[in-house]
Amino acid sequence: MDLSDLHVVIPAGGAGTRLWPLSRARRPKFLLDLTGDGRTLLQQTWDRLVALVPAERVHVVAGPAHADGVTEQLPDLRHLHVEPSPRDSMPAIGLATAVIAREHPQAVVASFAADHVIDDEDAFQHAVGQAAAAARTGKVVTIGITPRSAATAFGYVQAGDPLPTDGAPDARTVRRFVEKPDATTAEGYLRDGGFSWNAGMFVTRADVLMGHLARLQPTLHDGLQRIAAATDDRPAVLEQVWPTLTRIAIDHAIAEPVSLEGGIAVVPGTFGWDDVGDFSALHGLRGQDDAIWVDADGLALSTEDTTIAVVGIPDAVVVHTADALLVTTLERAQEVKQVPARLTAAGRDDLV
Amino acid sequence: MDLSDLHVVIPAGGAGTRLWPLSRARRPKFLLDLTGDGRTLLQQTWDRLVALVPAERVHVVAGPAHADGVTEQLPDLRHLHVEPSPRDSMPAIGLATAVIAREHPQAVVASFAADHVIDDEDAFQHAVGQAAAAARTGKVVTIGITPRSAATAFGYVQAGDPLPTDGAPDARTVRRFVEKPDATTAEGYLRDGGFSWNAGMFVTRADVLMGHLARLQPTLHDGLQRIAAATDDRPAVLEQVWPTLTRIAIDHAIAEPVSLEGGIAVVPGTFGWDDVGDFSALHGLRGQDDAIWVDADGLALSTEDTTIAVVGIPDAVVVHTADALLVTTLERAQEVKQVPARLTAAGRDDLV
Repeated sequence: MDLSDLHVVIPAGGAGTRLWPLSRARRPKFLLDLTGDGRTLLQQTWDRLVALVPAERVHVVAGPAHADGVTEQLPDLRHLHVEPSPRDSMPAIGLATAVIAREHPQAVVASFAADHVIDDEDAFQHAVGQAAAAARTGKVVTIGITPRSAATAFGYVQAGDPLPTDGAPDARTVRRFVEKPDATTAEGYLRDGGFSWNAGMFVTRADVLMGHLARLQPTLHDGLQRIAAATDDRPAVLEQVWPTLTRIAIDHAIAEPVSLEGGIAVVPGTFGWDDVGDFSALHGLRGQDDAIWVDADGLALSTEDTTIAVVGIPDAVVVHTADALLVTTLERAQEVKQVPARLTAAGRDDLV
Repeated sequence: MDLSDLHVVIPAGGAGTRLWPLSRARRPKFLLDLTGDGRTLLQQTWDRLVALVPAERVHVVAGPAHADGVTEQLPDLRHLHVEPSPRDSMPAIGLATAVIAREHPQAVVASFAADHVIDDEDAFQHAVGQAAAAARTGKVVTIGITPRSAATAFGYVQAGDPLPTDGAPDARTVRRFVEKPDATTAEGYLRDGGFSWNAGMFVTRADVLMGHLARLQPTLHDGLQRIAAATDDRPAVLEQVWPTLTRIAIDHAIAEPVSLEGGIAVVPGTFGWDDVGDFSALHGLRGQDDAIWVDADGLALSTEDTTIAVVGIPDAVVVHTADALLVTTLERAQEVKQVPARLTAAGRDDLV
């Protein structure tokens, strides 16, 4: 597997409001050791990628509030791009890609979120190898996660015809990307077998991505090129240009329109994958915790040395930090995002 | 209302395991400010009784682990009897009564638990006045709480014929004491109208109580007399005799057998009363707390400065202290006692 042309981008964004009070505005999900393994999600992502490419080919894009956290957690990081404000995934990935493209126009650029969990490194590497091979032919390639359930929390990728290439025997064209489905639709996808979860993993040649951007989002493309070209005074140009960039996700800027042109391929990701979207997902990753359960079960964790007891509540979620405490159920875990919203409305930004 | 012969005994016992983690073995319910009024339940009991009698006629009986807490909370207390080990209510009340009887054989002795809440002082004083008047005639008198609901958490007192006395126009004989009923039986009691809640409030002449004890529990009586007679070396005699005393509640030692002889009277207690038996009762006393409730309600309190948020759990109970955290529901509040039992079994006596 030849990955000598592979460069990696890790957009480290996302608020994680459904993981309050663990996840906070200043200490978001990717900076946390959510799985209890001793490494944060960002560090686990880093570990996984520097097994594939040297550290000098890894780029992280993060906000100014998290730059210190990122550099502390990743002492070997060479390329940190600080985005002055959050403008969604396309400007973030595009910025790193534009910088890479200046020196390596034909580089294969792969982007992976900083806060996802993957549990089979070999299968992950195999998928990246296939994706890179397919990307070299000029396709934008996504790694579609083979679904383990009819999940409604993720978008899906529908595969079309086989598109085998040297090194990518399982590649297929992408017929379309679909938004998070309802339960009935998701069950149909699972039965169909041609759908995979959209994990937001994109692998593409730098020149191919910049070409699509030039056609589809020309002002965004031009702004990114201006920033990348400013090798001497990049922070100043970034500060000036960034606020003018279109706020858009890579799914909407590239994946969806290019899929309609037949320009996207998908390779299967058969590894365990989770975006740790809420406490229900975290429970699935951590299993039963060390609490006192009396006719109860679920997720109970404290960042302090606090003993937790739960009586008579099945599927409970209890999350305790130094200054805040959340109680809900696995079923209602998605609604946790309402708590930071309420706190903000109440002027308690210190807790958000 | 003449209460010049009234002496008061406050047995300060009970573990309060259903109020864990607020209530602990070393810091039981009566030493806590559960109602949030700034006074502990013991202090509220004291305040209520020194409004009726001088401090020198109030006796508290407590265990050695709580003696310091009692004296700190009640700086004006003159008579603290430290029971070397818990032997239920009859030895505790009997000890104080035997001591009082040595100087005032005809004193009227009234005993009230240290950890109950009463919300109409005037009605309480009125009931004590009637009880004392009836007690002077030689009856053992209980104050029966007029039921507000068909509660199954309390025993009941069934009233018999009217027994009016000077100063006790509402006194009636007690036909029988009954244990905590099931819901159907309790509803029958409520409809009947002749039943009141047994709040464990007993008012009796000292010589009358000691006389019943001499007949019904002679070894217990003799042991208590030996302790009371030891005015010079009471602690040593107490230490020696106490372990030999029968472990029995006043309900079983006196109230039940004497009621069958027609020797018990009941006067109505029309005041609001609660034994704060569990978090459901505490919720009723405290009302809605200062938490973030998202499609949820119930009781949420933290002894620390911790913000609590509850999502999607109606009738939730969340109780947080410096080292422990309980989550349950109002409906399951009685089962909280299983938590300290589990902790003890796990060798975590530090948390019990």
